[in-house]
Amino acid sequence: MASIFQDTLQVRTSGRGFLEISEPAQHFVAGTPAQTGVLTVFIHHTSASLIICENADPQVLSDLEEWMQRAIPDGDPMFGHTAEGPDDMPAHIRSVLTATSLSLPVTHGRISAGTWQGLYLYEHRAAPHTRHVSLTLVGE
Amino acid sequence: MASIFQDTLQVRTSGRGFLEISEPAQHFVAGTPAQTGVLTVFIHHTSASLIICENADPQVLSDLEEWMQRAIPDGDPMFGHTAEGPDDMPAHIRSVLTATSLSLPVTHGRISAGTWQGLYLYEHRAAPHTRHVSLTLVGE
Amino acid sequence: MASIFQDTLQVRTSGRGFLEISEPAQHFVAGTPAQTGVLTVFIHHTSASLIICENADPQVLSDLEEWMQRAIPDGDPMFGHTAEGPDDMPAHIRSVLTATSLSLPVTHGRISAGTWQGLYLYEHRAAPHTRHVSLTLVGE
Repeated sequence: MASIFQDTLQVRTSGRGFLEISEPAQHFVAGTPAQTGVLTVFIHHTSASLIICENADPQVLSDLEEWMQRAIPDGDPMFGHTAEGPDDMPAHIRSVLTATSLSLPVTHGRISAGTWQGLYLYEHRAAPHTRHVSLTLVGE
Repeated sequence: MASIFQDTLQVRTSGRGFLEISEPAQHFVAGTPAQTGVLTVFIHHTSASLIICENADPQVLSDLEEWMQRAIPDGDPMFGHTAEGPDDMPAHIRSVLTATSLSLPVTHGRISAGTWQGLYLYEHRAAPHTRHVSLTLVGE
Repeated sequence: MASIFQDTLQVRTSGRGFLEISEPAQHFVAGTPAQTGVLTVFIHHTSASLIICENADPQVLSDLEEWMQRAIPDGDPMFGHTAEGPDDMPAHIRSVLTATSLSLPVTHGRISAGTWQGLYLYEHRAAPHTRHVSLTLVGE
Protein backbone atom coordinates (compact mmCIF):
# COMPACT_ATOMS: atom_id res chain seq x y z
CA MET A 1 0.00 0.00 0.00
CA ALA A 2 1.38 3.34 -1.09
CA SER A 3 2.46 6.10 1.27
CA ILE A 4 3.60 9.68 0.67
CA PHE A 5 7.03 11.07 1.52
CA GLN A 6 7.83 14.75 1.02
CA ASP A 7 10.79 17.06 1.40
CA THR A 8 12.15 20.36 0.06
CA LEU A 9 15.53 21.18 -1.43
CA GLN A 10 16.93 24.67 -1.15
CA VAL A 11 19.32 25.40 -3.99
CA ARG A 12 21.57 28.44 -4.34
CA THR A 13 22.24 29.23 -7.99
CA SER A 14 25.10 31.36 -9.28
CA GLY A 15 23.08 33.01 -12.04
CA ARG A 16 22.00 31.67 -15.41
CA GLY A 17 22.98 28.05 -15.87
CA PHE A 18 22.50 24.48 -14.75
CA LEU A 19 22.79 22.73 -11.38
CA GLU A 20 22.49 18.96 -11.30
CA ILE A 21 20.17 17.80 -8.51
CA SER A 22 20.10 14.07 -9.33
CA GLU A 23 22.18 13.28 -6.23
CA PRO A 24 20.05 15.04 -3.57
CA ALA A 25 16.90 13.62 -5.22
CA GLN A 26 18.40 10.10 -5.11
CA HIS A 27 19.43 10.68 -1.49
CA PHE A 28 15.87 11.65 -0.54
CA VAL A 29 14.45 8.49 -2.14
CA ALA A 30 17.05 6.29 -0.43
CA GLY A 31 16.03 7.76 2.93
CA THR A 32 12.49 6.40 2.61
CA PRO A 33 11.40 2.76 2.94
CA ALA A 34 9.73 2.86 -0.51
CA GLN A 35 10.98 0.43 -3.14
CA THR A 36 8.60 1.21 -6.02
CA GLY A 37 6.77 4.38 -6.93
CA VAL A 38 6.92 7.81 -8.55
CA LEU A 39 8.97 10.82 -7.48
CA THR A 40 7.46 14.17 -8.44
CA VAL A 41 9.92 17.04 -8.55
CA PHE A 42 8.41 20.54 -8.54
CA ILE A 43 10.13 23.93 -8.70
CA HIS A 44 8.36 26.74 -6.84
CA HIS A 45 9.36 29.51 -9.29
CA THR A 46 8.47 30.91 -12.71
CA SER A 47 11.92 32.09 -13.79
CA ALA A 48 13.83 28.87 -13.10
CA SER A 49 12.79 25.42 -14.22
CA LEU A 50 13.62 21.71 -14.37
CA ILE A 51 15.02 19.65 -17.21
CA ILE A 52 16.31 16.15 -17.74
CA CYS A 53 19.29 16.29 -20.08
CA GLU A 54 22.43 14.40 -21.03
CA ASN A 55 25.02 14.64 -18.25
CA ALA A 56 28.04 13.21 -20.08
CA ASP A 57 29.31 16.10 -22.24
CA PRO A 58 28.92 19.56 -20.61
CA GLN A 59 28.88 21.07 -24.12
CA VAL A 60 25.31 19.79 -24.46
CA LEU A 61 24.14 22.16 -21.73
CA SER A 62 26.01 25.15 -23.15
CA ASP A 63 24.61 24.47 -26.63
CA LEU A 64 21.14 24.30 -25.10
CA GLU A 65 21.71 27.62 -23.35
CA GLU A 66 22.94 29.21 -26.57
CA TRP A 67 19.89 27.96 -28.46
CA MET A 68 17.63 29.46 -25.77
CA GLN A 69 19.37 32.83 -26.07
CA ARG A 70 18.83 32.86 -29.80
CA ALA A 71 15.20 31.68 -29.64
CA ILE A 72 14.20 34.02 -26.79
CA PRO A 73 16.58 37.00 -26.92
CA ASP A 74 17.21 38.94 -23.73
CA GLY A 75 15.92 42.49 -24.06
CA ASP A 76 13.81 41.70 -27.13
CA PRO A 77 11.99 44.97 -27.99
CA MET A 78 8.80 42.87 -28.38
CA PHE A 79 8.56 42.42 -24.60
CA GLY A 80 6.52 44.85 -22.51
CA HIS A 81 7.35 43.23 -19.15
CA THR A 82 10.77 44.82 -18.63
CA ALA A 83 10.66 46.26 -15.09
CA GLU A 84 12.69 43.37 -13.64
CA GLY A 85 15.42 43.47 -16.30
CA PRO A 86 16.05 42.25 -19.86
CA ASP A 87 16.48 38.59 -18.73
CA ASP A 88 13.20 38.35 -16.78
CA MET A 89 10.61 37.91 -19.53
CA PRO A 90 12.86 35.41 -21.37
CA ALA A 91 13.12 33.54 -18.04
CA HIS A 92 9.34 33.18 -17.84
CA ILE A 93 9.11 31.91 -21.44
CA ARG A 94 11.99 29.45 -20.92
CA SER A 95 10.19 28.14 -17.83
CA VAL A 96 6.97 27.59 -19.77
CA LEU A 97 8.86 25.74 -22.55
CA THR A 98 10.80 23.47 -20.19
CA ALA A 99 9.36 21.86 -17.02
CA THR A 100 7.98 23.09 -13.72
CA SER A 101 7.19 19.50 -12.67
CA LEU A 102 8.81 16.20 -13.60
CA SER A 103 7.83 12.70 -12.48
CA LEU A 104 10.45 9.94 -12.31
CA PRO A 105 9.94 6.25 -11.69
CA VAL A 106 11.38 4.65 -8.55
CA THR A 107 12.37 0.99 -8.79
CA HIS A 108 14.27 -1.16 -6.26
CA GLY A 109 14.47 1.86 -3.95
CA ARG A 110 16.18 4.14 -6.47
CA ILE A 111 15.24 6.69 -9.13
CA SER A 112 15.33 4.62 -12.26
CA ALA A 113 16.57 7.10 -14.87
CA GLY A 114 18.69 6.32 -17.92
CA THR A 115 22.49 6.24 -17.55
CA TRP A 116 22.97 9.65 -19.14
CA GLN A 117 19.88 11.33 -17.75
CA GLY A 118 20.76 14.13 -15.35
CA LEU A 119 18.06 16.02 -13.44
CA TYR A 120 18.90 19.72 -13.54
CA LEU A 121 17.66 22.93 -12.03
CA TYR A 122 17.89 25.44 -14.89
CA GLU A 123 18.35 28.98 -13.57
CA HIS A 124 17.20 31.49 -16.20
CA ARG A 125 17.94 34.76 -14.37
CA ALA A 126 21.32 36.46 -14.71
CA ALA A 127 21.66 37.04 -10.96
CA PRO A 128 22.12 34.30 -8.33
CA HIS A 129 18.91 33.18 -6.61
CA THR A 130 17.84 30.84 -3.82
CA ARG A 131 15.43 28.33 -5.34
CA HIS A 132 13.06 25.87 -3.70
CA VAL A 133 12.34 22.46 -5.19
CA SER A 134 9.94 20.04 -3.56
CA LEU A 135 10.19 16.28 -3.78
CA THR A 136 7.11 14.11 -3.29
CA LEU A 137 7.43 10.35 -3.46
CA VAL A 138 4.36 8.16 -3.75
CA GLY A 139 5.75 4.73 -3.06
CA GLU A 140 5.44 1.41 -1.30
CA MET B 1 -1.88 5.33 3.48
CA ALA B 2 -2.55 7.12 0.22
CA SER B 3 -5.95 7.32 -1.45
CA ILE B 4 -7.07 8.69 -4.82
CA PHE B 5 -9.47 11.58 -5.32
CA GLN B 6 -10.59 12.61 -8.79
CA ASP B 7 -12.75 15.27 -10.38
CA THR B 8 -13.19 17.14 -13.68
CA LEU B 9 -13.33 20.85 -14.38
CA GLN B 10 -15.28 22.15 -17.36
CA VAL B 11 -13.87 25.45 -18.54
CA ARG B 12 -15.40 27.76 -21.16
CA THR B 13 -12.72 29.76 -22.93
CA SER B 14 -13.32 32.95 -24.88
CA GLY B 15 -10.79 32.16 -27.61
CA ARG B 16 -7.02 32.40 -27.58
CA GLY B 17 -5.70 33.37 -24.18
CA PHE B 18 -5.27 32.40 -20.55
CA LEU B 19 -7.68 31.37 -17.83
CA GLU B 20 -6.33 30.94 -14.32
CA ILE B 21 -7.58 27.72 -12.73
CA SER B 22 -5.54 27.86 -9.49
CA GLU B 23 -8.67 28.60 -7.45
CA PRO B 24 -10.87 25.66 -8.60
CA ALA B 25 -7.88 23.32 -8.26
CA GLN B 26 -7.24 24.58 -4.72
CA HIS B 27 -10.95 24.18 -3.96
CA PHE B 28 -10.90 20.57 -5.13
CA VAL B 29 -7.93 19.75 -2.90
CA ALA B 30 -9.53 21.46 0.11
CA GLY B 31 -12.63 19.30 -0.36
CA THR B 32 -10.67 16.09 0.25
CA PRO B 33 -9.31 14.85 3.60
CA ALA B 34 -5.76 14.62 2.16
CA GLN B 35 -3.04 16.69 3.81
CA THR B 36 0.01 15.59 1.80
CA GLY B 37 0.33 14.32 -1.75
CA VAL B 38 0.49 15.17 -5.43
CA LEU B 39 -2.19 16.75 -7.60
CA THR B 40 -2.01 15.81 -11.28
CA VAL B 41 -3.77 18.21 -13.62
CA PHE B 42 -4.47 16.92 -17.13
CA ILE B 43 -6.11 18.66 -20.08
CA HIS B 44 -8.09 16.41 -22.41
CA HIS B 45 -7.27 18.32 -25.62
CA THR B 46 -4.48 18.83 -28.14
CA SER B 47 -5.13 22.46 -29.04
CA ALA B 48 -5.26 23.88 -25.52
CA SER B 49 -2.72 23.24 -22.79
CA LEU B 50 -1.58 23.96 -19.24
CA ILE B 51 1.13 26.26 -17.97
CA ILE B 52 2.40 27.56 -14.66
CA CYS B 53 3.36 31.22 -15.06
CA GLU B 54 3.76 34.43 -13.11
CA ASN B 55 0.37 35.77 -12.06
CA ALA B 56 1.43 39.23 -10.83
CA ASP B 57 1.87 41.29 -14.03
CA PRO B 58 -0.63 40.42 -16.81
CA GLN B 59 1.92 41.74 -19.32
CA VAL B 60 3.90 38.51 -18.79
CA LEU B 61 1.09 36.49 -20.33
CA SER B 62 0.64 38.84 -23.29
CA ASP B 63 4.39 38.83 -23.97
CA LEU B 64 4.32 35.02 -23.88
CA GLU B 65 1.41 34.98 -26.35
CA GLU B 66 3.24 37.39 -28.65
CA TRP B 67 6.38 35.24 -28.55
CA MET B 68 4.28 32.18 -29.45
CA GLN B 69 2.76 33.99 -32.45
CA ARG B 70 6.21 34.89 -33.73
CA ALA B 71 7.72 31.43 -33.12
CA ILE B 72 4.75 29.52 -34.58
CA PRO B 73 3.02 31.86 -37.04
CA ASP B 74 -0.66 31.29 -37.77
CA GLY B 75 -1.20 30.32 -41.39
CA ASP B 76 2.49 29.50 -41.93
CA PRO B 77 2.72 28.20 -45.55
CA MET B 78 4.89 25.35 -44.19
CA PHE B 79 1.84 23.71 -42.64
CA GLY B 80 -0.15 21.09 -44.57
CA HIS B 81 -2.78 20.54 -41.86
CA THR B 82 -4.96 23.56 -42.67
CA ALA B 83 -8.52 22.18 -42.90
CA GLU B 84 -9.47 23.44 -39.43
CA GLY B 85 -8.12 26.95 -39.93
CA PRO B 86 -4.81 28.85 -39.80
CA ASP B 87 -4.67 28.71 -35.98
CA ASP B 88 -5.16 24.94 -35.65
CA MET B 89 -1.72 23.55 -36.50
CA PRO B 90 0.01 26.25 -34.39
CA ALA B 91 -2.34 25.22 -31.55
CA HIS B 92 -1.09 21.62 -31.74
CA ILE B 93 2.56 22.72 -31.72
CA ARG B 94 1.99 25.12 -28.81
CA SER B 95 0.37 22.26 -26.89
CA VAL B 96 3.36 20.00 -27.48
CA LEU B 97 5.78 22.74 -26.34
CA THR B 98 3.83 23.58 -23.16
CA ALA B 99 2.14 21.01 -20.89
CA THR B 100 -0.69 18.53 -21.20
CA SER B 101 -0.11 17.30 -17.63
CA LEU B 102 1.32 19.06 -14.58
CA SER B 103 1.89 17.62 -11.11
CA LEU B 104 1.82 19.91 -8.07
CA PRO B 105 2.75 19.11 -4.49
CA VAL B 106 0.07 19.20 -1.79
CA THR B 107 1.22 20.11 1.73
CA HIS B 108 -0.89 20.86 4.83
CA GLY B 109 -4.04 20.28 2.77
CA ARG B 110 -3.22 22.87 0.11
CA ILE B 111 -1.46 23.06 -3.26
CA SER B 112 1.97 24.26 -2.29
CA ALA B 113 2.94 26.47 -5.24
CA GLY B 114 5.15 29.56 -5.16
CA THR B 115 3.58 32.93 -4.35
CA TRP B 116 3.59 34.07 -7.98
CA GLN B 117 2.85 30.74 -9.61
CA GLY B 118 -0.52 30.73 -11.32
CA LEU B 119 -1.93 27.57 -12.92
CA TYR B 120 -3.42 28.48 -16.29
CA LEU B 121 -5.42 26.86 -19.01
CA TYR B 122 -3.89 28.20 -22.23
CA GLU B 123 -6.43 28.24 -25.06
CA HIS B 124 -4.63 28.23 -28.41
CA ARG B 125 -7.62 28.32 -30.78
CA ALA B 126 -9.07 31.65 -31.95
CA ALA B 127 -12.66 30.56 -31.27
CA PRO B 128 -14.16 29.92 -27.80
CA HIS B 129 -14.17 26.27 -26.72
CA THR B 130 -15.41 24.17 -23.82
CA ARG B 131 -12.39 22.42 -22.32
CA HIS B 132 -12.15 19.53 -19.87
CA VAL B 133 -9.43 19.35 -17.27
CA SER B 134 -9.16 16.45 -14.86
CA LEU B 135 -7.75 16.65 -11.37
CA THR B 136 -6.37 13.55 -9.66
CA LEU B 137 -5.01 13.80 -6.14
CA VAL B 138 -2.94 11.01 -4.65
CA GLY B 139 -2.84 11.94 -1.01
CA GLU B 140 -3.09 10.91 2.58
CA MET C 1 -6.12 2.45 -0.71
CA ALA C 2 -3.67 3.09 -3.51
CA SER C 3 -1.12 0.57 -4.76
CA ILE C 4 1.73 0.84 -7.28
CA PHE C 5 1.98 -1.12 -10.53
CA GLN C 6 5.02 -0.83 -12.75
CA ASP C 7 6.22 -2.14 -16.09
CA THR C 8 8.59 -1.27 -18.93
CA LEU C 9 7.97 -1.03 -22.66
CA GLN C 10 10.76 -1.68 -25.10
CA VAL C 11 10.17 0.15 -28.35
CA ARG C 12 12.16 -0.21 -31.55
CA THR C 13 12.10 3.00 -33.57
CA SER C 14 12.89 3.28 -37.26
CA GLY C 15 14.68 6.61 -37.00
CA ARG C 16 13.28 10.11 -36.60
CA GLY C 17 9.53 10.08 -36.26
CA PHE C 18 6.55 9.10 -34.14
CA LEU C 19 5.38 5.81 -32.69
CA GLU C 20 1.98 5.72 -30.99
CA ILE C 21 2.15 3.86 -27.67
CA SER C 22 -1.41 4.55 -26.46
CA GLU C 23 -2.37 0.92 -27.01
CA PRO C 24 0.40 -0.78 -24.96
CA ALA C 25 -0.10 1.81 -22.19
CA GLN C 26 -3.84 1.11 -22.15
CA HIS C 27 -3.10 -2.63 -22.13
CA PHE C 28 -0.84 -2.27 -19.10
CA VAL C 29 -3.52 -0.37 -17.17
CA ALA C 30 -6.20 -2.93 -18.08
CA GLY C 31 -3.96 -5.68 -16.69
CA THR C 32 -4.05 -4.18 -13.19
CA PRO C 33 -7.00 -4.23 -10.78
CA ALA C 34 -6.87 -0.40 -10.44
CA GLN C 35 -9.97 1.56 -11.44
CA THR C 36 -8.88 5.10 -10.56
CA GLY C 37 -5.46 6.70 -10.44
CA VAL C 38 -2.59 8.25 -12.37
CA LEU C 39 -0.34 6.64 -14.94
CA THR C 40 3.13 8.15 -15.19
CA VAL C 41 4.94 7.47 -18.46
CA PHE C 42 8.70 8.10 -18.44
CA ILE C 43 11.23 7.74 -21.26
CA HIS C 44 14.73 6.71 -20.19
CA HIS C 45 16.58 8.73 -22.86
CA THR C 46 17.63 12.29 -23.69
CA SER C 47 17.39 12.12 -27.48
CA ALA C 48 13.85 10.72 -27.73
CA SER C 49 10.83 12.03 -25.87
CA LEU C 50 7.10 11.77 -25.25
CA ILE C 51 4.25 13.87 -26.59
CA ILE C 52 0.49 13.83 -26.57
CA CYS C 53 -0.76 14.97 -29.96
CA GLU C 54 -3.74 14.71 -32.28
CA ASN C 55 -3.97 11.22 -33.74
CA ALA C 56 -6.60 11.83 -36.43
CA ASP C 57 -4.69 13.50 -39.29
CA PRO C 58 -1.11 12.20 -39.74
CA GLN C 59 -0.25 15.55 -41.37
CA VAL C 60 -0.27 17.09 -37.88
CA LEU C 61 2.75 15.01 -36.91
CA SER C 62 4.66 15.76 -40.10
CA ASP C 63 3.97 19.50 -39.72
CA LEU C 64 5.25 19.28 -36.15
CA GLU C 65 8.41 17.52 -37.33
CA GLU C 66 8.95 20.15 -40.02
CA TRP C 67 8.55 22.96 -37.50
CA MET C 68 11.12 21.27 -35.24
CA GLN C 69 13.60 21.02 -38.11
CA ARG C 70 13.24 24.73 -38.81
CA ALA C 71 13.40 25.81 -35.16
CA ILE C 72 16.35 23.55 -34.28
CA PRO C 73 18.27 22.92 -37.52
CA ASP C 74 20.38 19.78 -37.80
CA GLY C 75 24.04 20.62 -38.11
CA ASP C 76 23.56 24.21 -36.93
CA PRO C 77 27.08 25.76 -36.81
CA MET C 78 26.14 27.17 -33.38
CA PHE C 79 26.41 23.71 -31.83
CA GLY C 80 29.69 22.53 -30.29
CA HIS C 81 28.43 19.05 -29.35
CA THR C 82 28.81 17.42 -32.76
CA ALA C 83 30.71 14.17 -32.10
CA GLU C 84 27.58 12.03 -32.33
CA GLY C 85 26.33 13.57 -35.58
CA PRO C 86 24.43 16.65 -36.80
CA ASP C 87 21.09 15.33 -35.45
CA ASP C 88 22.27 14.65 -31.88
CA MET C 89 22.34 18.11 -30.31
CA PRO C 90 18.96 19.00 -31.90
CA ALA C 91 17.65 15.72 -30.41
CA HIS C 92 18.64 16.85 -26.91
CA ILE C 93 16.99 20.26 -27.36
CA ARG C 94 13.81 18.70 -28.78
CA SER C 95 13.68 16.39 -25.75
CA VAL C 96 13.97 19.32 -23.35
CA LEU C 97 11.19 21.20 -25.18
CA THR C 98 8.79 18.25 -25.28
CA ALA C 99 8.27 15.74 -22.42
CA THR C 100 10.39 13.17 -20.64
CA SER C 101 7.50 12.35 -18.28
CA LEU C 102 3.75 12.56 -18.76
CA SER C 103 1.02 11.76 -16.23
CA LEU C 104 -2.39 10.61 -17.42
CA PRO C 105 -5.55 10.10 -15.39
CA VAL C 106 -7.04 6.62 -15.07
CA THR C 107 -10.82 6.39 -14.63
CA HIS C 108 -13.05 3.29 -14.70
CA GLY C 109 -9.97 1.13 -15.27
CA ARG C 110 -8.83 2.96 -18.41
CA ILE C 111 -6.56 5.86 -19.37
CA SER C 112 -9.00 8.71 -19.66
CA ALA C 113 -7.52 10.77 -22.50
CA GLY C 114 -9.45 12.86 -25.01
CA THR C 115 -10.78 11.21 -28.17
CA TRP C 116 -8.03 12.61 -30.37
CA GLN C 117 -5.20 12.44 -27.88
CA GLY C 118 -2.55 9.96 -28.94
CA LEU C 119 0.43 9.17 -26.70
CA TYR C 120 3.58 9.08 -28.85
CA LEU C 121 7.21 8.20 -28.49
CA TYR C 122 9.01 10.86 -30.53
CA GLU C 123 12.34 9.59 -31.85
CA HIS C 124 14.65 12.51 -32.61
CA ARG C 125 17.71 10.64 -33.90
CA ALA C 126 18.06 9.83 -37.60
CA ALA C 127 19.06 6.21 -36.94
CA PRO C 128 16.79 3.50 -35.49
CA HIS C 129 17.12 2.98 -31.73
CA THR C 130 15.75 0.68 -29.05
CA ARG C 131 14.02 2.87 -26.47
CA HIS C 132 12.79 2.09 -22.97
CA VAL C 133 9.66 3.63 -21.54
CA SER C 134 8.50 2.89 -18.02
CA LEU C 135 4.89 2.90 -16.90
CA THR C 136 4.01 3.45 -13.23
CA LEU C 137 0.39 3.38 -12.16
CA VAL C 138 -0.65 4.67 -8.76
CA GLY C 139 -4.19 3.41 -8.48
CA GLU C 140 -6.87 1.80 -6.40
